[in-house]
Amino acid sequence: MSYMRDLGRQARQAARVVAAAGSREKDAALAAIAATLDAQREGLAAANARDLAAGRDNGLDAAQLDRLALTPARIDAMIEGLRQVLALADPVGEITGLSYRPSGIQVGRMRVPLGVIGIIYESRPNVTVDAASLCLKSGNACILRGGSESFHSNGAIAACIQRGLAAAGLPAAAVQVVATPDRAAVGELIAMPEFVDVVVPRGGKSLIERISAEARVPVIKHLDGVCHVYVDDRADLDKAFAIALNAKTHRYGVCNAMETLLVAEPVAAALLPRLAAAYADAGVELRGCERTRALVAECRPASEDDWYAEYLAPILAVRVVPGLDAAIDHIGRYGSAHTDAIVTEDYSRARRFLREVDSSSVMVNASTRFADGFEYGLGAEIGISTDKLHARGPVGLEGLTSQKFVVLGDGQVRG
Amino acid sequence: MSYMRDLGRQARQAARVVAAAGSREKDAALAAIAATLDAQREGLAAANARDLAAGRDNGLDAAQLDRLALTPARIDAMIEGLRQVLALADPVGEITGLSYRPSGIQVGRMRVPLGVIGIIYESRPNVTVDAASLCLKSGNACILRGGSESFHSNGAIAACIQRGLAAAGLPAAAVQVVATPDRAAVGELIAMPEFVDVVVPRGGKSLIERISAEARVPVIKHLDGVCHVYVDDRADLDKAFAIALNAKTHRYGVCNAMETLLVAEPVAAALLPRLAAAYADAGVELRGCERTRALVAECRPASEDDWYAEYLAPILAVRVVPGLDAAIDHIGRYGSAHTDAIVTEDYSRARRFLREVDSSSVMVNASTRFADGFEYGLGAEIGISTDKLHARGPVGLEGLTSQKFVVLGDGQVRG
Repeated sequence: MSYMRDLGRQARQAARVVAAAGSREKDAALAAIAATLDAQREGLAAANARDLAAGRDNGLDAAQLDRLALTPARIDAMIEGLRQVLALADPVGEITGLSYRPSGIQVGRMRVPLGVIGIIYESRPNVTVDAASLCLKSGNACILRGGSESFHSNGAIAACIQRGLAAAGLPAAAVQVVATPDRAAVGELIAMPEFVDVVVPRGGKSLIERISAEARVPVIKHLDGVCHVYVDDRADLDKAFAIALNAKTHRYGVCNAMETLLVAEPVAAALLPRLAAAYADAGVELRGCERTRALVAECRPASEDDWYAEYLAPILAVRVVPGLDAAIDHIGRYGSAHTDAIVTEDYSRARRFLREVDSSSVMVNASTRFADGFEYGLGAEIGISTDKLHARGPVGLEGLTSQKFVVLGDGQVRG
Repeated sequence: MSYMRDLGRQARQAARVVAAAGSREKDAALAAIAATLDAQREGLAAANARDLAAGRDNGLDAAQLDRLALTPARIDAMIEGLRQVLALADPVGEITGLSYRPSGIQVGRMRVPLGVIGIIYESRPNVTVDAASLCLKSGNACILRGGSESFHSNGAIAACIQRGLAAAGLPAAAVQVVATPDRAAVGELIAMPEFVDVVVPRGGKSLIERISAEARVPVIKHLDGVCHVYVDDRADLDKAFAIALNAKTHRYGVCNAMETLLVAEPVAAALLPRLAAAYADAGVELRGCERTRALVAECRPASEDDWYAEYLAPILAVRVVPGLDAAIDHIGRYGSAHTDAIVTEDYSRARRFLREVDSSSVMVNASTRFADGFEYGLGAEIGISTDKLHARGPVGLEGLTSQKFVVLGDGQVRG
């Protein structure tokens, strides 16, 4: 498709301009985009109404239509998101570690944009603004491909972004929204390494698996969130109760919700019946090991599959384990390296858990629900990475950059 | 091939042990490997003699046989390399940026190993020790696949590594050398994402291109080194002379050698004839643009292909450009984002070059030959990355790690 290659070529050219742009220009564009969105609320609502009507005609369910809706509150949230990204420090050009070497050269690292970022996402149109603002602030050009359900909404948002870029004197191709509903566009976008440096898929697991398998450029991705809370036998049981309840019931459909609770045998009898009652009040179904079921009558038996499950629903797997070693083994075997927490007052066990659990976020005495760009102070996130290279965990501005070496000399040559 | 999957499975298990190993254990292993290599010089020489004899029978040329040879000096260098890696600070477990968030949690990042690293390299057997030591120190397990020409040498080195691991109580599978000359082993190694986290190919361009195209795991790679030196019209011409000569003639077959010299028009007449005489003395063939040829009689004409060429030989492309903008454009168009240098005494131009040239190493008034792990103080390198994600430039211990988030709380839950 020559259309996608044209977008790629234009993005590659724009990327050099955006990479060299000053903080003031980039922030001016973000402010202008926010102002335009605010001024264009009627146009945005009209475009969104077309998508909603088409969605109803195409049989989208209530949850899908809800994700698609651009309510006034969601437009407010997009504008607020832009202002938050605007307020973040510009990461581009930061030089760290500059120091003299025996040869007399100084060597350090400069933080630089990745180049052109392709983002593929499903129906929520607010992602268009979130992604564009993070890419722009981090000095990258981006090509955004939203879901076909939100085609008109994304087009209206794209028009606002274009006005903001123009107002700040930045190239239009710094942010390009794919203007074809043709599904082949995604296949093209992920197979142009000459124009696209990295792809970030945001959506369901099948989308992400397909893109990972087919991409010919690096992918920053999030697959599963099989998150654990391990309640140690030296836990403060009130903290354990609060964390285990919050990690499961605060929101169900999110990747950082707890899916499996591990409880040390010595405290299982004191904790599990009390927790089970609270889960029952919240409507959470429990699936447990034999020892759990001996303590909680209404608990169903867990199968081997339950330990691997990302329910994203009011269901929780529960297992009584002998202690820390068994908990670490369980997490290593069944977990997805997303977010795992220990509840303990024991210093040495906390220290071991932090070191030995190989997940993108590892926590002591806190709810897994904190694994989030805003909670971590990154300001916003393009997604949460469960990869091991480059960026792990919430990916904010820094994850959209890398570091090159800078060398300052005074005529040095190698002898 | 179940053999490779067995290696993978064992490496995955060993990786957890090595990741949790203390600095003292890892350093003890490195010291024991060095001592064993020192004690086994005769056995190493005998194994190497078998490879050399087979190489001669198979028609390897003198340069190939030279790369294959394990001379006493090269065994000394392997031992010295181990001691240098031993002396480096352990990167694993370093926590940075730990700070309080409004919710009361503390959030920081801990440096952690990548897991299992696959390294594929050609005939030089010393890579076996270099790669093993860097992976071990950075807490990773590794699977090493050397060239079939060095099969016996690598086997003898592997035996020394095994003794060293055993002496330090570390698992044998922490470092595994593929013990089959079957070429299908490489295809397997790069297609086991469940067991291998990243692959580092070291060798010729065709090897690296094939691995990049076929790998189903992330690849840290080095492709081309089309390095430039731009001599600005505000350069100190004595520095320019020394740097341009060193960057080309210090060594020809290395990726950080200059392949194209760009000279600002106002200083071309003062610099190029003098430089051309020095290049002629060194036996370097020049291929230049029309303006270069007007100044240097013996210079052949350069074709468009010459601007893209990585000669790795005593050949140099030379182009006279109007100034900094044209130089940056040329590097962006024809370069390989490896290492590029400006020679100038102008502060603002140096500052612009550092920011706007998007290469893994960007230099002011220094020879491109400095782009090297030892010269940068990384201690040693597993290779030089021309990728944009994760690691750019020389990849040392830090490039074999990533950072996970650590969260320390006191019972916090999300409201």
